[in-house]
Amino acid sequence: MASQKDQPGPTDNNDHLIKSADSQHPANLIPELCRKFWTLGWVTGTGGGASIRNDDLVYLAPSGVQKELMKPEDIYVLALSQQVDPKQRIYLRSPPSFKPSQCTPLFIAAFTKRNAGCCIHTHSQWAVLVTLLLETVQSDLFEINNIEQIKGFGKGFQKQGNLGYHDTLKIPVIENTPHEEDLTESLEEAMNKYPDTYAVLVRRHGIYVWGETVHKAKTQAESLDYLFQLAVEMRKLGLPWLSDFSFALL
Amino acid sequence: MASQKDQPGPTDNNDHLIKSADSQHPANLIPELCRKFWTLGWVTGTGGGASIRNDDLVYLAPSGVQKELMKPEDIYVLALSQQVDPKQRIYLRSPPSFKPSQCTPLFIAAFTKRNAGCCIHTHSQWAVLVTLLLETVQSDLFEINNIEQIKGFGKGFQKQGNLGYHDTLKIPVIENTPHEEDLTESLEEAMNKYPDTYAVLVRRHGIYVWGETVHKAKTQAESLDYLFQLAVEMRKLGLPWLSDFSFALL
Amino acid sequence: MASQKDQPGPTDNNDHLIKSADSQHPANLIPELCRKFWTLGWVTGTGGGASIRNDDLVYLAPSGVQKELMKPEDIYVLALSQQVDPKQRIYLRSPPSFKPSQCTPLFIAAFTKRNAGCCIHTHSQWAVLVTLLLETVQSDLFEINNIEQIKGFGKGFQKQGNLGYHDTLKIPVIENTPHEEDLTESLEEAMNKYPDTYAVLVRRHGIYVWGETVHKAKTQAESLDYLFQLAVEMRKLGLPWLSDFSFALL
Amino acid sequence: MASQKDQPGPTDNNDHLIKSADSQHPANLIPELCRKFWTLGWVTGTGGGASIRNDDLVYLAPSGVQKELMKPEDIYVLALSQQVDPKQRIYLRSPPSFKPSQCTPLFIAAFTKRNAGCCIHTHSQWAVLVTLLLETVQSDLFEINNIEQIKGFGKGFQKQGNLGYHDTLKIPVIENTPHEEDLTESLEEAMNKYPDTYAVLVRRHGIYVWGETVHKAKTQAESLDYLFQLAVEMRKLGLPWLSDFSFALL
Repeated sequence: MASQKDQPGPTDNNDHLIKSADSQHPANLIPELCRKFWTLGWVTGTGGGASIRNDDLVYLAPSGVQKELMKPEDIYVLALSQQVDPKQRIYLRSPPSFKPSQCTPLFIAAFTKRNAGCCIHTHSQWAVLVTLLLETVQSDLFEINNIEQIKGFGKGFQKQGNLGYHDTLKIPVIENTPHEEDLTESLEEAMNKYPDTYAVLVRRHGIYVWGETVHKAKTQAESLDYLFQLAVEMRKLGLPWLSDFSFALL
Repeated sequence: MASQKDQPGPTDNNDHLIKSADSQHPANLIPELCRKFWTLGWVTGTGGGASIRNDDLVYLAPSGVQKELMKPEDIYVLALSQQVDPKQRIYLRSPPSFKPSQCTPLFIAAFTKRNAGCCIHTHSQWAVLVTLLLETVQSDLFEINNIEQIKGFGKGFQKQGNLGYHDTLKIPVIENTPHEEDLTESLEEAMNKYPDTYAVLVRRHGIYVWGETVHKAKTQAESLDYLFQLAVEMRKLGLPWLSDFSFALL
Repeated sequence: MASQKDQPGPTDNNDHLIKSADSQHPANLIPELCRKFWTLGWVTGTGGGASIRNDDLVYLAPSGVQKELMKPEDIYVLALSQQVDPKQRIYLRSPPSFKPSQCTPLFIAAFTKRNAGCCIHTHSQWAVLVTLLLETVQSDLFEINNIEQIKGFGKGFQKQGNLGYHDTLKIPVIENTPHEEDLTESLEEAMNKYPDTYAVLVRRHGIYVWGETVHKAKTQAESLDYLFQLAVEMRKLGLPWLSDFSFALL
Repeated sequence: MASQKDQPGPTDNNDHLIKSADSQHPANLIPELCRKFWTLGWVTGTGGGASIRNDDLVYLAPSGVQKELMKPEDIYVLALSQQVDPKQRIYLRSPPSFKPSQCTPLFIAAFTKRNAGCCIHTHSQWAVLVTLLLETVQSDLFEINNIEQIKGFGKGFQKQGNLGYHDTLKIPVIENTPHEEDLTESLEEAMNKYPDTYAVLVRRHGIYVWGETVHKAKTQAESLDYLFQLAVEMRKLGLPWLSDFSFALL
């Protein structure tokens, strides 16, 4: 058994794929992340989710689970290379009593198109409020600059280093659809239009954030939520999201 | 003793009804839920409560208890089939030092009229604020649509599936009464008028939410609270709760 | 030693007064309460405090301690009957490295004038904001009615039962002084003017809340903070704190 | 080994400098503080940091770490007396997989110019919002008075006692720079201009707070954040930050 660890096995529902004593194993990390996200209000009422990719294997939180109670046994596993037809998705390992998440094709898009190692989906109210505020001016792009926390984001796909303080962080917004899987096309379009973004907002719904590693996806998701909350508070106080301060103010 | 587990016993205050090593036993689940609800600000200062039905047995949090400190020994148990006259309620098991909750007939209404398996009562400030905002326009119905979190609700009593993104979630509001038990009639009227609702708001008081299972009652309560908080923030930002976006916006 | 438990001892700094395996012993309860209050934002940065009276013995959190880190060893103990001259307060037991709290005479006022068993002092921002809003209309009385949570308060000193839903909760406000001990006189005046109140707001400072038991003081403090937060949010939304709804609205 | 404890050792990366069974050892305290700060929203997404000085040794959180997951092994150690040229900083002990924090010279400024024992850097949104509100009136000084929590601050460098209730707390604001290290000069200028301040706000970025001890730095950081949050809420409610109440109001 020990020698098969982390290798897809032919029988027994491949439970070895989600059993590990290593706290950094994806099947242990996803429940830990989801507990944290529940506390942050990101995955209220079974909303939202998270997925980690380890080489060719993708680990996924199931649909409809109470995120703060999730266990490694609840995790789905699939092999990225075998997902030829998204309509005929084959799972190497399925939990006995859940359904796959409708977020799956969106997570896969982050893994295949952006080589992400982790993708997080939240229903954060700050993200939703930002999309609602942008809707009033028919905008599909969130922009903010001259806030230190912007430095928490990478410059973009296959680029080195992080954004600078004076750079403008741009997060595209796509329109929501009745079925979450149907977001995939417009998510991929947004990725093409903004190749350096690490996140896509979904109007009246939430956000997808990814990163090369769990660390980067999670800290970028935190930094974004910080900026969305700040942006909503700025709006309440009549403060603009964009400014020009490349010179000393006082 | 072990063979009598979960069977009403004739003697000894039936303490076996609330003693179980199973974390999913109602007498263990109610305290765990209440601890969580206290952290969410739903059951501040002994307000609110929760009840679980297991076939004919109903488990109830007592009145006046600090919800984050509740223990299985604090739980009341009654048999649903024996509640002929609500004024002469008979408890199979009573805790030594508490009083029954005035919420009891309202929980029972959810169990008998809607076949619920769990009913949650909160004093959430977001729920109260929504009822206050509706009061200013003399409305007794909360309505919101085109928000993803709406999909967290079932379509209704004896119906399959969940609400869709474009569906309008409608939660009736009843007026508060000096004595909580006196809410029962208007709660039942609201259930009759809105047979598919899983919740009833109580003006200037809070909300009752139920579901077929503990899982559904709890996640629907979370999703509702999310929507109420969002609605209050939307109001602060001048954003309407209802919109017409069955077509692509941009 | 065991037989001396909870009896003032003549020697050894009376450490037996604050050592007990009973989780309900005041020296264990005060740190537990203070940890909870820190999480609620009531005792930020060493502000606020708590005291429990057990017959003639008074247990007090010290001055300047980080409340979420407090330990039983940090507790002061004094005998109420021996506090003839407040300027010459004698402690039966003092922690080695702290100073007595300036709140002490205010806690004692609640114990001697109202026979309280516990008194809690918080710097809650909601309490402070309410006093600031009242200041703009030169008011020294917070009033709110027709909110269910009001039922969380007792009718008053030596009275049975709790306030009703339609009763108006009245909490007097006293002006702050540079030295906390100097609040004692005006606190006692407020107690005389409003003999049934269980709390006194201190302008631009916070609140003192008491109750016959730890349970009542703590749940009344929670209910008050709930109402203050609600009142601030109501103000932001243009909703009045007082209304006349002794009849059915709709 | 035991005899070398807390003494810089010549070999083995000096891991003995960060290994201690004492919970009050800086290498244990910094992770504990950072966990707390993460929960408070002060160090979201690897932002912010903390440093403790013990005589000549300075312990530092690394750059880019998830603060709630930090471990003693992640800590940098340097000797204050050996930091002749800030561009050639020499660490007695470095963690294997992190980079030094850009905050280091700012922490060192607090240690060398103010003899601080601990310095905390947060990205608190309340601090950022206060700097944004001040920016609209081109102000580089936050001022508030007549709030009890002001008494949580020391009177100033090499002075005894704390501020009084009627004293005006003044916190200077410096402009942010693209590279955090470049803040050092203006931070030191602010220290010179306001020699008694224990904190410097950084526009659109956050705050640096220090104190003679860990206890004082941490409680002053808490009290400041309390005041910034209060100030933002006061602004939403139209309440001024400064007032003149050295006489009884009512």
